[in-house]
Amino acid sequence: MLSFECDYLEGCHEKILQRFLETNMQQLPGYGEDLYSESAKAKIRAACAREQAEVFLLTGGTQTNAIIIDTMLRSCEGVIAASTGHVSVHEAGAIEHTGHKVLQIGQKEGKIQADELESYLENFWQDPNRAHMVFPGMVYISHPTEYGTLYSKKELERLSQICRRYKIPLYLDGARLACGLMSRQTDVTLPDVAEYCDVFYIGGTKAGALCGEAVVFPQGDMPPHFMTMVKQRGALLAKGRLLGIQFDTLFTDNLYFELGRHAIDMAQLLKDGLARMGYSFYLDSPTNQQFVVLENRQMKKLSEKVRFEVWEKADEEHTVVRFATSWATREEDIRRLLDCLR
Amino acid sequence: MLSFECDYLEGCHEKILQRFLETNMQQLPGYGEDLYSESAKAKIRAACAREQAEVFLLTGGTQTNAIIIDTMLRSCEGVIAASTGHVSVHEAGAIEHTGHKVLQIGQKEGKIQADELESYLENFWQDPNRAHMVFPGMVYISHPTEYGTLYSKKELERLSQICRRYKIPLYLDGARLACGLMSRQTDVTLPDVAEYCDVFYIGGTKAGALCGEAVVFPQGDMPPHFMTMVKQRGALLAKGRLLGIQFDTLFTDNLYFELGRHAIDMAQLLKDGLARMGYSFYLDSPTNQQFVVLENRQMKKLSEKVRFEVWEKADEEHTVVRFATSWATREEDIRRLLDCLR
Amino acid sequence: MLSFECDYLEGCHEKILQRFLETNMQQLPGYGEDLYSESAKAKIRAACAREQAEVFLLTGGTQTNAIIIDTMLRSCEGVIAASTGHVSVHEAGAIEHTGHKVLQIGQKEGKIQADELESYLENFWQDPNRAHMVFPGMVYISHPTEYGTLYSKKELERLSQICRRYKIPLYLDGARLACGLMSRQTDVTLPDVAEYCDVFYIGGTKAGALCGEAVVFPQGDMPPHFMTMVKQRGALLAKGRLLGIQFDTLFTDNLYFELGRHAIDMAQLLKDGLARMGYSFYLDSPTNQQFVVLENRQMKKLSEKVRFEVWEKADEEHTVVRFATSWATREEDIRRLLDCLR
Amino acid sequence: MLSFECDYLEGCHEKILQRFLETNMQQLPGYGEDLYSESAKAKIRAACAREQAEVFLLTGGTQTNAIIIDTMLRSCEGVIAASTGHVSVHEAGAIEHTGHKVLQIGQKEGKIQADELESYLENFWQDPNRAHMVFPGMVYISHPTEYGTLYSKKELERLSQICRRYKIPLYLDGARLACGLMSRQTDVTLPDVAEYCDVFYIGGTKAGALCGEAVVFPQGDMPPHFMTMVKQRGALLAKGRLLGIQFDTLFTDNLYFELGRHAIDMAQLLKDGLARMGYSFYLDSPTNQQFVVLENRQMKKLSEKVRFEVWEKADEEHTVVRFATSWATREEDIRRLLDCLR
Repeated sequence: MLSFECDYLEGCHEKILQRFLETNMQQLPGYGEDLYSESAKAKIRAACAREQAEVFLLTGGTQTNAIIIDTMLRSCEGVIAASTGHVSVHEAGAIEHTGHKVLQIGQKEGKIQADELESYLENFWQDPNRAHMVFPGMVYISHPTEYGTLYSKKELERLSQICRRYKIPLYLDGARLACGLMSRQTDVTLPDVAEYCDVFYIGGTKAGALCGEAVVFPQGDMPPHFMTMVKQRGALLAKGRLLGIQFDTLFTDNLYFELGRHAIDMAQLLKDGLARMGYSFYLDSPTNQQFVVLENRQMKKLSEKVRFEVWEKADEEHTVVRFATSWATREEDIRRLLDCLR
Repeated sequence: MLSFECDYLEGCHEKILQRFLETNMQQLPGYGEDLYSESAKAKIRAACAREQAEVFLLTGGTQTNAIIIDTMLRSCEGVIAASTGHVSVHEAGAIEHTGHKVLQIGQKEGKIQADELESYLENFWQDPNRAHMVFPGMVYISHPTEYGTLYSKKELERLSQICRRYKIPLYLDGARLACGLMSRQTDVTLPDVAEYCDVFYIGGTKAGALCGEAVVFPQGDMPPHFMTMVKQRGALLAKGRLLGIQFDTLFTDNLYFELGRHAIDMAQLLKDGLARMGYSFYLDSPTNQQFVVLENRQMKKLSEKVRFEVWEKADEEHTVVRFATSWATREEDIRRLLDCLR
Repeated sequence: MLSFECDYLEGCHEKILQRFLETNMQQLPGYGEDLYSESAKAKIRAACAREQAEVFLLTGGTQTNAIIIDTMLRSCEGVIAASTGHVSVHEAGAIEHTGHKVLQIGQKEGKIQADELESYLENFWQDPNRAHMVFPGMVYISHPTEYGTLYSKKELERLSQICRRYKIPLYLDGARLACGLMSRQTDVTLPDVAEYCDVFYIGGTKAGALCGEAVVFPQGDMPPHFMTMVKQRGALLAKGRLLGIQFDTLFTDNLYFELGRHAIDMAQLLKDGLARMGYSFYLDSPTNQQFVVLENRQMKKLSEKVRFEVWEKADEEHTVVRFATSWATREEDIRRLLDCLR
Repeated sequence: MLSFECDYLEGCHEKILQRFLETNMQQLPGYGEDLYSESAKAKIRAACAREQAEVFLLTGGTQTNAIIIDTMLRSCEGVIAASTGHVSVHEAGAIEHTGHKVLQIGQKEGKIQADELESYLENFWQDPNRAHMVFPGMVYISHPTEYGTLYSKKELERLSQICRRYKIPLYLDGARLACGLMSRQTDVTLPDVAEYCDVFYIGGTKAGALCGEAVVFPQGDMPPHFMTMVKQRGALLAKGRLLGIQFDTLFTDNLYFELGRHAIDMAQLLKDGLARMGYSFYLDSPTNQQFVVLENRQMKKLSEKVRFEVWEKADEEHTVVRFATSWATREEDIRRLLDCLR
């Protein structure tokens, strides 16, 4: 059975396991104060070209979103997100569980539109009843989005300007940032992300790690007592080395970026093949998630040989499905998938 | 430098890393629905001699305590714990963060006394103002306790009877359960724990895993939608295999128990050596944490060669320190420690 | 200055103050256990034609919504509400503050459409990813809605059937229920509300009380320890008599209904007058809130003599404004308002 | 039946009802923005001799404590309180419900001892594991305490100095402040309270109001968006006049202080009478709560004619009971109580 239903099917890149083996019997302090965590943070700061940045390693994406949003917002504030944002739909209400409303606004191919954001903020601050409403306290974007799309550098800059004008942080969920940065159609670099965002995370789980996301505060303004608040939320690992070693490995010799490039290469191979065969795409995704329109009977038949995600109904006869490639996808599997679709 | 300051200094047992390597490129479903997680759960059920038990794998101890307590208590209920309990002191207020009070009661060598528990419950239910107070909704014990001590089977049975009479669950924090079960001075087995407790967890982090705690609901009454509530609290790993493979390995060929026995053997070696040299102990610990009274100058000198935990002041001239052994402690390091103390 | 901007401008009906005076020096037990609270509850049960109903008196609307929703939902559940619902917009995030998501769905003139509700629930329960989403655990409707509109008996029955099929409670926010029940265009009675809803509240603040809302559990299934949970949320008054006396007075000799009828009569007077003058209405409201389209210059001029609520922009030249009548509105003030608009 | 079981048995001072009547049909803005609320706040500022103070009116004591503590603490902070403090015992876990631990410390006659507080703070900041513990973020005292006792000006000053040295606010729960200020054995004035405390509340419910507590931020540093956070917690009254009129009346012509003095006078009458008869007191209370040791048979007999609060067992034969006087206590009832005890 071929599997393309998501980008976290395999364990982790073998170099990570190798490092686990090499360092296994070293006695290291807990809670992220080990030398590998320190080294990982230094390398991430360098990759972001931000000496003053602060970095904190967490375990998973929903955990990271909930902690960042909860510790950075005031009690009366909510977070603006696209109605299709991961925090809006697929985190089991983790944000609301921390007491904060997700203020859903419209989107285009998964992306918040700067004009709409600006109107929302303008309208809020002009509403005479705003003291009875949730204050917009942060903007959440995912990059790549849940539809695989990317903000351009200019779009990012514009969102950043709006947020800074209204003095609210711009937060970027980079669960799939490796693919975003290595897309052939992007002009956004990691230092750009660090410049335009006030906080963001570099996803590990979907980029070759067993688990782990690296939160970056590019201006070095991590909330005070952040570690204690992480512990209080049950998210502090005793053996912080588990995260430190992984990110130290990923940010050695550009491994993180290479893994992203591989996923992109595999996605491009698939995309080109499908295009040649005349398949139509739900949208033009420049990253590792490809959304393809299949005729329903064909989809059913395909599902006997291939695992994929059923995205949504296109019309009575057709369905949008998602194929995801990853750091671990083999070229031969892409070819077999294309054969199945021929 | 010798290190005895805690029992989570090293990575994990090498068999676990071996299994990571062997299974690494297998494509597995996420969120704990992989075959290794299933296998681990089956083995744990067998080790507990409880076919109907439900098992859920989580990442760390504070996370587990907060989730169990929060999802099993009603909003108006709190959890009774010893004033020295981990949830009372060293979890950064994680329990209160979920909205529940830790109802601290007295303790003896870290253990809740059945008579005191009974009085507490009796008094509460007789108090005419109880509708304005926090309802006792659960009893939390740690076994071994934070002082390394153990409940006897009879003590456990008595606590269990009291809880069942008052219809509140008895919850056992088994962060160091491997050592508790393999102590030479215990009559409590894992099936006993499953019989007397209503929910408990089998600690992995302090028993040879990189991370991970296995929650057991021996009566098969895991709260409905537990997985969703775990996700909502940011504690659901995408790659559940990380936990599944570890516990599957630990519960294969009795590895979990052997690792506990090794820690106990090393503690016994230390204890015997110290006793022979005339050291006095703060209390008689039957597990892997040994609390020794040192003369202050000697303590200072020792700290140049050995890392240990300063527990508390004994008197003006003496201090109680803790030495912890673990699955990874080498016999030669115990001998070197004893030499330092000679 | 004439004031029509809301329906809580005056103190309370004078009979309530009269009862305060008469009972003032009586020594009564606190926390709602006084005889007036008991009497009020009995009268409400009778008005609902529900002997088994349980009633609890709270202070305000947002407080009531937050407490009902929080104490009746499980942690992983959210509440479905119209995107225009009071809980969705104008409660400062009080529902999310309790940890629960407001699952906003579409609306028509403020009302949830049964078909849309049914689709939403159907889709949720068919979604293979639903374990990662917020479970719909309750349906919230307001009656009258924020647009003054009313559900018909048939519509209410249909919503009720859907909720019962999916085993989730239907909750009715009756902040303006007095007007809803006394509308000339309704077929819904208070016993109907008690039959079709699983929990609802009878609004006092907007119907002649100084403060107070009466929550009714028509099937007598108030959550256990409800009073303690109310106290825990800071909502239990020491002098419960404040609420007891008010509701006892309102439900004596049909005062509650008469006050509703007066507000309706005044609204009808206004509506007829405006219609005769050719004004157009934003929608046809059968209750005490009237939404009128004014030409912008006229609106500006009117605002020098009359207070009203600016609702929303109609087009470049026109604005929708709201006039609210109440139990205290004087016929002469309606006539003066009409004069201003002539 | 004579009633001395608490100080909130009657309605409110008749002048308040008189003002309700006089102002009833005035049309006033909601949410505390009416002129009576403004006037009340100005008078309170004057009584505190603090021009820059900010004042906010809330409904009840538990609500006030929970809101103040929750909005002023950071997420990782808890509040230090005496183990007998109202927030520690009799608020149904309202503080923990907001996510904050009550850090209970010892007490003497209900009062926190400055030395103990200092040690606690010193120890915390020296503890190498403090990042895993709850940070002390505020000190809560009640004045009068739950035992009727009072801090002296010097004691208050000392607590204040300690708090300021550690940069944490000192919060005074003044549920019974009227009695505290009018005690014959106090040297503490309202301006003193405003000088030494960083936030406090002036209790209305137990001093002649139907409900209401006035929170004072003497340095004018009310948390931003406080009103929105109050709304979010369900504590904002639509008809803010209910609180405004009451406090405006209480702070006109020193009524608040006179009501306190009356309660004190009645308590003194009782105390003197009991002393003359040879009764012994559990402690020497200078305010309106008197704790008397009764022989058990006598207590039982007394309970047929008088309501009082059973406080605690003194010994096998004796019980401590509490008699509370109030603004509404009649001299003749004190005499009748004394007769019963003769």
